[in-house]
Amino acid sequence: MTTKQLTLYTARICPYAQRTEIALAEAKAKFTRYEIDLQNKPEWYAPKVNPASKVPAIAYGGPEVPPDQPSPESVKLNESLVLVEFIADLYPESGILPKDPVLRAKARLFIDAVSTKYSPAAFKATHSGDGDPEAFVQALESLQALLPPKGFVVGEFSIADIAIAPFLARLEVTLSNDLGPWPANSGEGQKLLKTLQQPKLARLWEYSKEVQSRPSFIATFDKDVIIKGAERRFKAFREQKYGA
Amino acid sequence: MTTKQLTLYTARICPYAQRTEIALAEAKAKFTRYEIDLQNKPEWYAPKVNPASKVPAIAYGGPEVPPDQPSPESVKLNESLVLVEFIADLYPESGILPKDPVLRAKARLFIDAVSTKYSPAAFKATHSGDGDPEAFVQALESLQALLPPKGFVVGEFSIADIAIAPFLARLEVTLSNDLGPWPANSGEGQKLLKTLQQPKLARLWEYSKEVQSRPSFIATFDKDVIIKGAERRFKAFREQKYGA
Ligand SMILES: N[C@@H](CCC(=O)N[C@@H](CS)C(=O)NCC(=O)O)C(=O)O
Ligand SMILES: N[C@@H](CCC(=O)N[C@@H](CS)C(=O)NCC(=O)O)C(=O)O
Repeated sequence: MTTKQLTLYTARICPYAQRTEIALAEAKAKFTRYEIDLQNKPEWYAPKVNPASKVPAIAYGGPEVPPDQPSPESVKLNESLVLVEFIADLYPESGILPKDPVLRAKARLFIDAVSTKYSPAAFKATHSGDGDPEAFVQALESLQALLPPKGFVVGEFSIADIAIAPFLARLEVTLSNDLGPWPANSGEGQKLLKTLQQPKLARLWEYSKEVQSRPSFIATFDKDVIIKGAERRFKAFREQKYGA
Repeated sequence: MTTKQLTLYTARICPYAQRTEIALAEAKAKFTRYEIDLQNKPEWYAPKVNPASKVPAIAYGGPEVPPDQPSPESVKLNESLVLVEFIADLYPESGILPKDPVLRAKARLFIDAVSTKYSPAAFKATHSGDGDPEAFVQALESLQALLPPKGFVVGEFSIADIAIAPFLARLEVTLSNDLGPWPANSGEGQKLLKTLQQPKLARLWEYSKEVQSRPSFIATFDKDVIIKGAERRFKAFREQKYGA
């Protein structure tokens, strides 16, 4: 397939955006990468690229233009999971979308569990602060139940692994640095991580390690940026909630 | 593609299940249809077909067996949107999945809006009874904004139209029969329908009519079953809430 120009609007900190970066890395795609500063978004971004004002987004086709002057002639697409399937469709030789319809369905069922089970439980436990660790453990168990005894979700590395990897990695990094909606230096983060890494979830964490050692993951993951971002976010949260 | 045996576990009343029935009709697929009585589910259904105990589900492959004696050798799949993509993958000649990656992405973006915008607003306004009609109007406007001036979501009839049609049709049928989480004979249903069918949403309702006149839709839609089911559901709801 001959592809047209592709510009990715992304942010190192964002797990949704990393999904698209992993997919593009797996596809060995040529593209223009444009980092959006989420603390200070350019005023042209929402009107010209993504009305939802979120990353990731793709501008595809149209004339070659500087990324900060997007052309009205390119197609604008957003939503990370839609973009990952789009990249898989543009680059079938990337192999991230299995050829077998049954394996595709299994990959998409796993992704559905990430969206409907993992994400809400993770958000409550690690962001909004009204989470119940037991509910989070159960969500992780339901993901683990979809994993084979060894290797990636459907055998070969696929869109399913791409959907979860950025989230498991951020979870480990933030909790081990005690970053979350609890008082500073309380050790709550490490404590939660220990609860999550209990023996019955061993397979999930072994899997997490394996996806995080994939070259396309490593090349698109910036631990320091993620720690700094979480420090900033929870500093504000803690000041508001605990006055410190 | 040579396909294997396919058994669909479904229920006339269920909009999610109708999605899969429309897709199979578009594909002119040979399959075994098994109606699940949701008021009285067979005890083998959850353990042997779908642990989530919901319709739709598909048993694919394995030996030819009676549908009420599912074989452990068939692959069991669920989640309507995953199943619609699975059917599209099995039957590429059905045309319900566009060949062009950009059109596919647009179809999937529309489906994402159905799941994340339409469904929550519709559920609140027409099922749980804590809905705000204005929020529902806005959700419908956001769908309408994704429609072209004429015809289906991406031109040809596709997975996008399949995702929304069963919901718009049930909405019209239940509201015009005053069925919802309000007191009986209050006229609230018709009133809400009028609010939703205001002139600024004309394009959406024209579209709704068009998808509902698709033969695959007509062949899989049973108005009477839907009315009876809603009557039963809201009778129970009204007795509990309004004591009548
Ligand atoms: N459902 C979207 C979520 C994307 C999202 O929430 N991105 C965040 C950053 S991680 C964002 O851009 N938020 C807007 C902001 O920070 O202003 C997707 O899957 O792409
Ligand atoms: N997310 C599921 C939802 C399916 C669903 O909720 N189905 C309902 C009927 S419409 C069901 O089977 N509920 C279980 C029950 O009624 O016992 C899908 O898209 O397939």
